[in-house]
Amino acid sequence: MTEALEHRTDPTRLALPARPGPHVVIVGAGFGGIEVARELGRAGVAATIVDRQNHHLFQPLLYQVATAALSPAEIAEPIRKVLGRYPSVEVVLGEVVGVDTAARQVELKNGTAIRFDRLVLASGATHGYFGHDEWAEHAPGLKTIEDARKLRSRVLLAFEQAEVTPDPDEQRRLMTIAVIGGGPTGVEMAGALAELSRHALSRNFRRIDPSSARIILLEAAPRLLSGFPESLAAFAKERLERLGVETRLGQAVEDVGERHVTVAGERIPVGAVVWGAGVAASPGARWLGLEGDRAGRIRVGPDFQVPGLDGIHVIGDLALVDGEDGKPLPGLAQVAKQEGTHLGRGLARNLKSGEPLEPFRYRDRGNAAIVGRHAAVFDFGRYRLKGWFGWLLWAIVHVYLLSGAQNRIVVSLRWLLRYLTYERGARLIADDPGRKMPPPRRPDR
Amino acid sequence: MTEALEHRTDPTRLALPARPGPHVVIVGAGFGGIEVARELGRAGVAATIVDRQNHHLFQPLLYQVATAALSPAEIAEPIRKVLGRYPSVEVVLGEVVGVDTAARQVELKNGTAIRFDRLVLASGATHGYFGHDEWAEHAPGLKTIEDARKLRSRVLLAFEQAEVTPDPDEQRRLMTIAVIGGGPTGVEMAGALAELSRHALSRNFRRIDPSSARIILLEAAPRLLSGFPESLAAFAKERLERLGVETRLGQAVEDVGERHVTVAGERIPVGAVVWGAGVAASPGARWLGLEGDRAGRIRVGPDFQVPGLDGIHVIGDLALVDGEDGKPLPGLAQVAKQEGTHLGRGLARNLKSGEPLEPFRYRDRGNAAIVGRHAAVFDFGRYRLKGWFGWLLWAIVHVYLLSGAQNRIVVSLRWLLRYLTYERGARLIADDPGRKMPPPRRPDR
Repeated sequence: MTEALEHRTDPTRLALPARPGPHVVIVGAGFGGIEVARELGRAGVAATIVDRQNHHLFQPLLYQVATAALSPAEIAEPIRKVLGRYPSVEVVLGEVVGVDTAARQVELKNGTAIRFDRLVLASGATHGYFGHDEWAEHAPGLKTIEDARKLRSRVLLAFEQAEVTPDPDEQRRLMTIAVIGGGPTGVEMAGALAELSRHALSRNFRRIDPSSARIILLEAAPRLLSGFPESLAAFAKERLERLGVETRLGQAVEDVGERHVTVAGERIPVGAVVWGAGVAASPGARWLGLEGDRAGRIRVGPDFQVPGLDGIHVIGDLALVDGEDGKPLPGLAQVAKQEGTHLGRGLARNLKSGEPLEPFRYRDRGNAAIVGRHAAVFDFGRYRLKGWFGWLLWAIVHVYLLSGAQNRIVVSLRWLLRYLTYERGARLIADDPGRKMPPPRRPDR
Repeated sequence: MTEALEHRTDPTRLALPARPGPHVVIVGAGFGGIEVARELGRAGVAATIVDRQNHHLFQPLLYQVATAALSPAEIAEPIRKVLGRYPSVEVVLGEVVGVDTAARQVELKNGTAIRFDRLVLASGATHGYFGHDEWAEHAPGLKTIEDARKLRSRVLLAFEQAEVTPDPDEQRRLMTIAVIGGGPTGVEMAGALAELSRHALSRNFRRIDPSSARIILLEAAPRLLSGFPESLAAFAKERLERLGVETRLGQAVEDVGERHVTVAGERIPVGAVVWGAGVAASPGARWLGLEGDRAGRIRVGPDFQVPGLDGIHVIGDLALVDGEDGKPLPGLAQVAKQEGTHLGRGLARNLKSGEPLEPFRYRDRGNAAIVGRHAAVFDFGRYRLKGWFGWLLWAIVHVYLLSGAQNRIVVSLRWLLRYLTYERGARLIADDPGRKMPPPRRPDR
C-alpha cells in the first residue's frame, strides 16, 4: 500500500509520494477550497487538499454553537467524508508554513512537502484586532470550532460565577457581555445571546435573574450592517433593542481587558467579550513572498492567478478580486463558493484539454443576517425581505447549504425543537470548569 | 437579589449565604446525586448540589462519543436544566476539596464553603491504574466528556498520521488500537472501534485501508464480561471476533507507553490505547478522614449513613453497600440511581416529619452490554437475551433513560440514521490538529 519515497534536495523535508499526471494542491478546505476539490474530483484530476483541521466548517452557523443552540459536530463535516467519493482527491491534515515557488512545493509544519503543478490558496481569513493583538486573549472571535467552544464556556461560566458572587457590582459585571462589531457576526451573536439569557437560562438560576443580563453591541460606524441597505440595518437595530440588546453606534472601542471594555472614554466592566469586528487574511501573501493589501489579501486577475506566478491561484477571503462595479468582492461564503466552483471547473478543463481559464463573474444570490429569534434581514439587491418570512427563508437556505445529510436532518430537528421549546441543547462548559471557578470577590474589599 | 454574607470563623473561607430550614448538600450530579436532588426538590426541601462539571452526563453512552457516533452535548444535560423546575434546589459549580465534619460544611477549591445539615456524597469513581499512574497519560479512560473527546481525537489522528506515513511498520503501529479491560466499557469500545474503522472510515482514505486496522481487546481474566453469565460472555467474544477484534484473554498488561503496550512479555506497538480496566473511587474517604476499602470506597449501613458520622451519607460508586446475597453491589448506573431515589425520598420524609430512614433493597433490572453494531447481551438474572433483539431493547432503554426530551429525539434520530447509513456524525479532531501533526518517521532510520 505504501509507495516508495521521493527524496528531495532538502534532506530535512520529506515529500509525499507523487502520483502520476498533473497535480493540483489546494490549501484550505473552507467554502472555496472544498469546491475546487469537488470539481477536480468530478473530473478525475489528481488533487491534494491540505487543512489544519480535519473538518469542513459551516462558519455561518458558528454563532449558534457559541450560544449553545447547536453542537460543534452538527455544523462540521470531515473533509475526508465530503470528498470521499472522489478517488483522485487526497486529503492531508497539516499546517502550511510556506510555499517554495521555485521548487513548486507546499511546505508543512511537520517537515513534509507536497509538490504541485497548480496551486490554489484558499486559506481564508482570521480575526484582526487593528494592531491590538493583546486584545485577542480577552475577546475571542468566531472562526473555528475552538473559538465557539471558548466563547460558549466563557459566557456560561460568567453566569455560574454571578450565581455564587455575593458582591452586587461584581454580579453586574459578570452579567454584562460586550459584542464588538455591528456586522452580521456581531448582530447575530448579540441577538442569540439575548435569546439565551432571556429564555433558555431563565428558570435555571436561584440567586440571579439571567434575563437581566446586559448585552451591549458596539459599532464604530454610525450604523449596523454596513453591507446591507439602510432600511434593513434600521430594522435590525430596532429588533435587537426590542430583545433588550443595547446598541452603541459611532463609538470606537479604545481598550479591551480581561474584565473591561473601554468605549468613548467609558470603562464598562464586562464578564465576557465577543470579537466580531476586524478580519485579517491568512498569511498567504507571506508564503508567496508578496506584499498583501492592508487586510493581507492578494490581488489576483479575473482567473484568480497571481500576477507573475504562473499556475498559482488565490480565491476566497485571501483574494482581492474586483466585482463588476469595480469594488472588491466581499468576504462572504457565497463569493468563496462561486470562485471555487469556477476555478475548479476551469482548472479541470485546462489540465485535461488545455482550454484557457475563463474570467470569473460573481452572481449575488442575496445576503442575509439573522436578528434574534424569529427575524432576519435579506438583501437581494433589487428585493429586500425582513422579519419572520426572512427568517424562514434563511433557515431553509442554511439547512440546504449544510454539508452532510445527517447534519441537515439533525440541525432542522434542533431548530424545530428550539422553535417550539426555547431550549438550547448544547449548554456545555468545557474542561472541568469547577476546578477553575475563581474565588468570589468580597463585597467589603 | 444578593443576600447578606455570613462570615465564618475561618476568615479565608466565604460561606454561601444560608437559606432557612434544614439544608441538604449533595456532592456530585451523577446518577445517584441527581436523583437525591430530584426527590428533595419534589418535596420542597432546601438542597444544594455541587459538581465540577455543569452537566449531568449519561456515562453509558460515552463510548459512542469516543467513537464519533454521538456529539458530547447529546448525552449531557445542564444540571441546572435537569433540576430547573425545583425552586428549593440550588446548583453550584465547583470542586470539593474537603468536608469539615465538625463545622458541618463542605469546602470548595475556590475558597468558599457550603454549610449542611445533611450531606450526601455521590462523587462517584474515576479510573484506577493499579498503582501505575504513569499509564494514565498514554491510556485515557472513559469517565468524562473530556476523556471521550481526547480518545476520539487520538484514534482519528492516528489514522491521519498513518495516511501520510511512508514507513510500513510505523503505519501498522498507528493502525493498531489496544483496548485494556474486558468489562462492558472495553467490550463496547472494541466493538465500536471495529465498526468505525470497517465502515465509517472505509472509503475516506487513499493510501491506507482503515478496515485493516487492528483492534486488540486485552483482559487479564480468562473471560470477558465477568459480571455476566458465561454464555453471554462467550457470545460477546464470538461476535467481537467476527467483527475483526482480536481478543487476548488471561493476559495481564505489564506496561503501557506512548507507543506500545506490553502484554505477556510481548511488546505491541500501538497508535492509541483505551483504558477500561480499573476503577478507583473519588477521594470521599479522605475528605471524611476515613480509611476506604482497597478501591477507596466507604462502607455504609443500609441507610447509607457513614458509621459514626451522623447525617453524612454516601451512595453510588463511592459507597460500599452489601446486596441481599452479602456481596457488595456493583458500580452500575442503576444501582446509583436506585440508591439516590431511595435516599432522597427518605431524607425528605425524615426532614419533614422525623420518620427514620428505611433500609435499601436493590432490585436488579437487568444488565446489558452492546457488542458491535447490531448485537447486545442482556442479563436479567433468570432470563437472558442476546443478539439483535437485545440490541433493540438496549437502544430503547437507553433512549428512555437519557436526560432531556431534545437529547432523546436527537439520539434516536442519529441511531436511526447510522443504522441506515453506517455513517458517524461526529468525527471531529479537537484543537487545531494540523499544527500538531508529528513528522512522519523515515523508513530508512
